[in-house]
This record gives sequence, C-alpha cells and structure tokens, in this order.
Amino acid sequence: MPIDDPVALSLSGERLTAIYRIRAADEGAALLRAQDICLEQTVEFPAALIPSELIRAQIVGSVDALTAAGSGAWDVRIRYPVEAAGAELTQLVNLLFGNVALQPGVRLMDFSLPDGMLAGFRGPRFGITGLRGLLAVHDRPLLCTALKPMGLSAQALAALAYELALGGIDLIKDDHGLTDQPFCPVDERIGRCAEAVERANRETGRRCLYLPNVTAPAGEIARRARAAKAAGAGGLLFCPGLAGLDAMRALADDAGLAMPILGHPAFIGGLALSPDAGLSHKVLYGRLHRLAGADAAIFPHHGGRFAYSEAECRDILAGCTDAMGELAPIFPVPAGGMQLGRVRELRAFYGRDCILLIGGDLHAGDEGLIARARRFVALAGSD
Amino acid sequence: MPIDDPVALSLSGERLTAIYRIRAADEGAALLRAQDICLEQTVEFPAALIPSELIRAQIVGSVDALTAAGSGAWDVRIRYPVEAAGAELTQLVNLLFGNVALQPGVRLMDFSLPDGMLAGFRGPRFGITGLRGLLAVHDRPLLCTALKPMGLSAQALAALAYELALGGIDLIKDDHGLTDQPFCPVDERIGRCAEAVERANRETGRRCLYLPNVTAPAGEIARRARAAKAAGAGGLLFCPGLAGLDAMRALADDAGLAMPILGHPAFIGGLALSPDAGLSHKVLYGRLHRLAGADAAIFPHHGGRFAYSEAECRDILAGCTDAMGELAPIFPVPAGGMQLGRVRELRAFYGRDCILLIGGDLHAGDEGLIARARRFVALAGSD
Repeated sequence: MPIDDPVALSLSGERLTAIYRIRAADEGAALLRAQDICLEQTVEFPAALIPSELIRAQIVGSVDALTAAGSGAWDVRIRYPVEAAGAELTQLVNLLFGNVALQPGVRLMDFSLPDGMLAGFRGPRFGITGLRGLLAVHDRPLLCTALKPMGLSAQALAALAYELALGGIDLIKDDHGLTDQPFCPVDERIGRCAEAVERANRETGRRCLYLPNVTAPAGEIARRARAAKAAGAGGLLFCPGLAGLDAMRALADDAGLAMPILGHPAFIGGLALSPDAGLSHKVLYGRLHRLAGADAAIFPHHGGRFAYSEAECRDILAGCTDAMGELAPIFPVPAGGMQLGRVRELRAFYGRDCILLIGGDLHAGDEGLIARARRFVALAGSD
Repeated sequence: MPIDDPVALSLSGERLTAIYRIRAADEGAALLRAQDICLEQTVEFPAALIPSELIRAQIVGSVDALTAAGSGAWDVRIRYPVEAAGAELTQLVNLLFGNVALQPGVRLMDFSLPDGMLAGFRGPRFGITGLRGLLAVHDRPLLCTALKPMGLSAQALAALAYELALGGIDLIKDDHGLTDQPFCPVDERIGRCAEAVERANRETGRRCLYLPNVTAPAGEIARRARAAKAAGAGGLLFCPGLAGLDAMRALADDAGLAMPILGHPAFIGGLALSPDAGLSHKVLYGRLHRLAGADAAIFPHHGGRFAYSEAECRDILAGCTDAMGELAPIFPVPAGGMQLGRVRELRAFYGRDCILLIGGDLHAGDEGLIARARRFVALAGSD
C-alpha cells in the first residue's frame, strides 16, 4: 500500500516560527528536547517510523536556532509549515502549544506568522486607534470600570452605570462574573445598563460605552452579543479562557456586530503563571488576544491582588503593541486591585495608550461615585 | 439610591462546595487567603465596601473547613451559592477558578455540586456502560488508536483505518492535529475513513467506531459533527482546551448527533502541571470532562512522553468513575507514548474499565499493522 501521496504533499515551503524556552541540563539535552517538540507538535509519531521522507522534510518542525537563556534554560526557535495550522486559530494554537502544554520545562515565549498567514486573520476590528475614535478621546489613557458587586439587581447596577458615566468614565463593563443569574437576568441587565449609559451620555455630551459580558454557553454567545447591540451597548466583554479563544475571534469577525471587545483573563491566565511552562505573558495577552480580535486585554498589573512582575507587564505591553503584520495594536488594560493612588504610576509605566481599569476603589471613601470618577479622569489626564 | 433590592436577592441557600489547596506560611495565613478567595470568586470587591448585608451573607463564599495538608499547605473547603453559577458551565468554571487561576499557591482540588444543580447537566450521553453497549465489548478494556502521522492524504489514512479495524481495534480516532489541512481536507478524510471502517466492519462483523476530530473554529464545530454523523462516523474527538469546554457540552447535548465523545487534553492540560496551582487532575479530567459530556478522557499515563505521576493518574481514575449524582462514569484513556509492552501493566493499574490508546507503537516492527493490532487485542483480553 502506498502510504503517502507525493502529489498531495507539495507544500508551499512557507514557515511560521515559535520560540520556546527549554529547561535542560545542558545544551545537548536542550537540543534533544527541541527535536522532540518538532515531532510532538506535528506528526506525534516516533521519528524512525515516519513512513515518508516527504513528511519528514515538509511536516515535521525543524530547529532553527538554539541560544542560551541563562540559568539552565535555552531558547529554541522552531519552524513549522504554515499548512500544518490550516487556516484555523484552534489548530494554530494546537500546533504551537497543544501537546507540549502538558510537559513541564517548556514555555512558549513568542511566535511569528508570515504575512500571508497573518492576512487570514482580521484581528482587532478597532484596536487603539479605532477605540479612541469611537470615544473621541485622544490625549490620555482611557478609563474603565466594572459594574459590581455580584448580587446587585439589574436596576441597582444600572444606577451605578449612570453615575459612573456621568463621572466621565469611558468604558463601563460588566464584572466578568455577571452572566445570567436569577438575581440579575442578562437581558434585563443589558437593557437597563445600556439605557442608563445612553441617558448619561445625552446629559454629558460624551460617548461612554457600556460593555456587557457575553461569556456564555456556546449556543448563547452570539444571541447575547446581538441583544447587546440591539440594546445600544457599545462593546463586549469576553473571557476567552471560559468560552474559547476562537469564539472571541468569531465575535470580532462578525460584521453585523462590529463592536469593540475587551478580553478578560479568567481561567486562561493560569497558563502564564509558571516561568518554566505554559505561555509567556506576551503570547497570552498580546499575540493570542490580537489574533482572536480583542481590542484590549485585561491583565493583573504587578502590585495588586495578583503576582505578575514588572517585567511580565512590560512583556504584555510589547505583545499588545509591537508590529504584527497588518494587525492593529491593542490596549493593555492593567487591572486587578488598582487604586486611584496608582494612576500616575500606571500612566508612567504604560504610556498614554493604555486603559486604566479601577473597580472597587471607585466605591471607597466618602466623596461619592460621581466625584470619585471625576477625580479618576482628572488624575489620568494630568501630566 | 437603594443600592440593592432585597426581594431580588432571596436565594435558595443551596450551596456548591470547592476544595482548594493553599500554600501558606501558617494556618492563619491560609485562612486569610481562603477568605480572599471567597471574595475574589464572587463579588470581586473589597469586603468593607460591599453595599449590602444580604450580598455579604448570600453571595460571598464562606469558608467551611480548613485542614492541614502537609508541607506548608492547607486544604480549605469553600461554599458558594448555586445561583452565582447561574445554569451555565462557563460561569460555573469561572466561579470555581476564574480569577484565582491567576494566583500562584492555590489549586482547585475538587468540587461538588448539589443534586439539583447536577441535574441541570446531562453529562456523558454514553459513559462506560453506553459505549460498551455500542461496541458490544464487555469483558476487556476498549482499544483505541489514532490515525497518523499528519501529512498523509485522506486516502492513506483511510487505508490505515481499514487495516486497524480489520485488526480488531474498537475506536479509531483522528490524530488531534488533523483538522482541515490542504493536504488532508476534513470532509474528504471523514468520508473516506468512515467508509473504510464500515467496510472493515462488514468483513469482521464487529462494530469498530471511527471518531473524527471536530475541534474547529466556533462556527464550524457543529457542521463538522453533522458531516461526521452523515458520513457514518461513530463518535467524535474534541479538544476542549482549544475550542471550549462548553462547546464540548453542546456537542454532547445535541440529540441530533447522539455520538460518543472522546476528550483530548491539548493546551488545557497545562493547567494541571504545577502541584501548587491550577486544577487537580481529578478536576480537569474527571469532574470537568463529565460535566462537559465527554464519554472518555484522554490523558498522559505516567512513564510515557509526559510527566504525570502514578498518584495523579489514580486521581484521574477516581474523577472519571466516582459518584457524581446521576452523571455516568466515563472511561479514563491513558495515553501519550504507550506501547504494547505496557498493556498488562495498564490493565492492572486501571482495571477493565479503561480505554487503552496506542498510536505510534502499532506501526513499529515488521509484523504489519493488522497483525500488531490483533496482538494488542489479545494482550488486552488476556488475564
């Protein structure tokens, strides 16, 4: 039996590249590990048993470079044929890190797609420039807050949204834990909050956007997004770790929606935790969020309730904004227990092109929500 | 402004429970950490600012028990109101582990839902009993293999499928890296492989099932699953980490499909790697796969190409088969570089109710695929 068909396996020769950090005893061991990755991520088959030279030459990944990365680690660049990813984000993620995600001592540090392949992804529909245009805010970081705490009725959340919009917040999102709970049904919440923000906008003349959470069961995501659009919501909050990176891509690609998307790291953020495994912060919050069409990526800034380091936050900034073919740069959204007292520091760290997300701290003190929101705006706008 | 609505917040009092392993300096620190989780996973709001006693009492999680787990770790049991999860798998996962996934030193060890809530999940449509019934194999582990390597044409893969089915394999799945590549288009592969297995079944009188991979872009999953059903495929392979746990649940719940589902751990398996963070093996491969409707969960058995320990594999076995309301027990599928020489050991470890998955090793040696598959059957069936 002819086990392969040479005609069918005539690939373009175009390659995408991935950089992995490998922990190993020495360079030789790192190289062996890298060669294992080349097999594991493609044929998943013992090298000696591959039934065709064409597959060995065209499908199996190839080690392109190996450089010492200090303290028992090596960075290896591996090239894969673009055809192995098909034209699917799901399979691209699988090719880059599907099986090796289960192996300790290997971390995906970065990846790069050739222009022809990148062109297959629309990416962020708005990005930094587009979102600034929607809001007509160009000279300072954008300001975001979350409707919370869980347990409030739709009516109470709408009352908060109204005050926050009056106070000058640019983006008011649902807390990501608000979905469709009996004490706060999704359609009622979306309707009331969208109306409240619109009412405030009529009074202020500003363009505050309400972004409901449409992280939902598979068959329900599109319905909620359309309901949000119909109700006048200005964008969407989505947790790709809970409902799928490609489900976010589908929302971003939907021309009938054409709404900016804020990505939230619930659940998936755990893949960046260990420095010796998982995904780099740049890959998770920058590369993957952009490929999946997010216009902004929420992550925990260092020194809040989470454990990311300054270096990791800089890595996220780079991933959100560096060159990636024609894909738009997106806003980094440092969050996770940020407070008004840190606004200047955040602005200095990320520059003007970031979204500052402050939740609970807007509710602190005695000055009231509107006044405190105004102070947030003033702090963010002052140099 | 009345910040909450007491009428709307009259919850049932029913609680689900989660057990977290917390790394801490001492018991006091562990308790503080546990109390933080109670807030983080629900209101995500500073305790002092919660605007209502009703929310504090009914929404915020509560620490139920704290026990030492050895070497600087404590196991804490936290109770959450069932209403906080709504009736959605996406939000249940978020409630259990959304934000804390981003914090080191906290691992979700197990969770338990009250019967009323479990009844909202159909879970595995077949499970161990149902899948055995489909195959009419009751007295030995089921045998599975994967069509590979990537790079073969649909025709070549179908030729392999035919031989493997003749050799007596019960379940023939696509390799999870086979999606819709130009060298092996999905519809052609599904059609040819389903036909090849059916042809072999006519010759053998057996009921081998072909399970194509339907891990795909969000809008394409259901189409591929229906195409698979129409072509005569007997089940589905799905990677919940790549395309969403709830997307697997939607496939399992689809009465028009009613096909057994084999879950593959690509990408999501990374969340179980660190003993100090992420998800326990029991939660990932047992609890979540069953809630999401998988009939079998593939994972790397210890001693293969991956790093799971014996204890972790036992934890998976428990999660797949222990009591979980009316949800069917499912097959553990130890895999990841298994070889014929380990069949007896695997059978001793997992008992009869497992699926043995051997890929590359069926292609080794000189005896030929059919003969080697027959030897696999003989090894698995002998006591």
